[in-house]
Amino acid sequence: MDSAVVLAIAREEGFACEALSFDYGQRHRAELDAARRVAHSLGASGHTTLPIDMRAIGGSALTDDIDVPKDRGDIGEGIPVTYVPARNTVFLSYALALAEVKGACDIFIGVNALDYSGYPDCRPEFIEAFERLANLATKAAVESENVLRIHSPLAQMSKADIVRRGAELGVDFALTHSCYDPDEGSRSCGRCDACQLRIKGFAEAGMKDPLPYSH
Amino acid sequence: MDSAVVLAIAREEGFACEALSFDYGQRHRAELDAARRVAHSLGASGHTTLPIDMRAIGGSALTDDIDVPKDRGDIGEGIPVTYVPARNTVFLSYALALAEVKGACDIFIGVNALDYSGYPDCRPEFIEAFERLANLATKAAVESENVLRIHSPLAQMSKADIVRRGAELGVDFALTHSCYDPDEGSRSCGRCDACQLRIKGFAEAGMKDPLPYSH
Repeated sequence: MDSAVVLAIAREEGFACEALSFDYGQRHRAELDAARRVAHSLGASGHTTLPIDMRAIGGSALTDDIDVPKDRGDIGEGIPVTYVPARNTVFLSYALALAEVKGACDIFIGVNALDYSGYPDCRPEFIEAFERLANLATKAAVESENVLRIHSPLAQMSKADIVRRGAELGVDFALTHSCYDPDEGSRSCGRCDACQLRIKGFAEAGMKDPLPYSH
Repeated sequence: MDSAVVLAIAREEGFACEALSFDYGQRHRAELDAARRVAHSLGASGHTTLPIDMRAIGGSALTDDIDVPKDRGDIGEGIPVTYVPARNTVFLSYALALAEVKGACDIFIGVNALDYSGYPDCRPEFIEAFERLANLATKAAVESENVLRIHSPLAQMSKADIVRRGAELGVDFALTHSCYDPDEGSRSCGRCDACQLRIKGFAEAGMKDPLPYSH
């Protein structure tokens, strides 16, 4: 959902967009099919799914055989087991590589530091540090005057704001996927952090979530 | 060669070392076999080779069907086509993920900014920026007092210094591999940047390189 709204924002700002997804061994692979549908419906120029096996690193409920926590009453306090070590650092590194090859200066990412699970690599200071790194890391940064920017337009938005902004921009939320632990028919569990935050966002925005939930 | 000397330095400083190599689609896959031999001979606790397909990103003579430059007289001036977009950013990101899972606070990398090909992601300012990022990126950095350090002990050494230091520490250079464009028998070409820098290093150190060269 967040990535879809980010893409809609970037498109509205006039960017031609290459969408980039990661098949990192996540149990919620359903999000990869959703990403393809969303990228197409919002007019991305292209969509790449990179296979990067983070199971070889391990350490997360999203990639390992560890139960995804359900019905947490304390979302945002502490860092849960769904945290994937250094995931956004790895994702942004690949995005940087792709940006360099494509000659792009702008990378968009849907991190959010308000209604979120407390992952360290979603915080604004992390994104700023990555932007600084990016401007030292590449041939483009060294040989040209172009400044590489990491855009995180959702950083300070509530989930309700994200839902409302997406609706304004015509995002079809029926195409999106948020659940960490969907059932075999890709139905959302309604109880993991991702579902709870999503459900809360729709409720606060006074809108109906078009997704079916198993719970 | 550089990675081997870095491992020897880290071992001498008393670190237990997990060696990490990347199968990123490089044409000189011979270096992966060499890495395994070197890690074992220098007493690494373990050795992981991560398959990460950077050919999907492209943009380099090391991964694409672009000729590796030979007999360059101007090594260090400009950035050559062997530059792999954002490679060290991607490598360090995975190292950070592995460090987090293993509970390690120290990452060693064999970048060198004196006798080198002019890659932007080998410079000290890049390494410093990554260290700063790393200390914002992980659960370990947020929840503990531990500071993550990126060590680059070769940064300011000449290739001759690296050869001498490796010899002092008992590195068996016959186990190492440097060439970007080896022949089918894994013999080094003697003419690419990596070979030329290595040959110059051994010559200046007054030592014999044990590797066979096809040229």
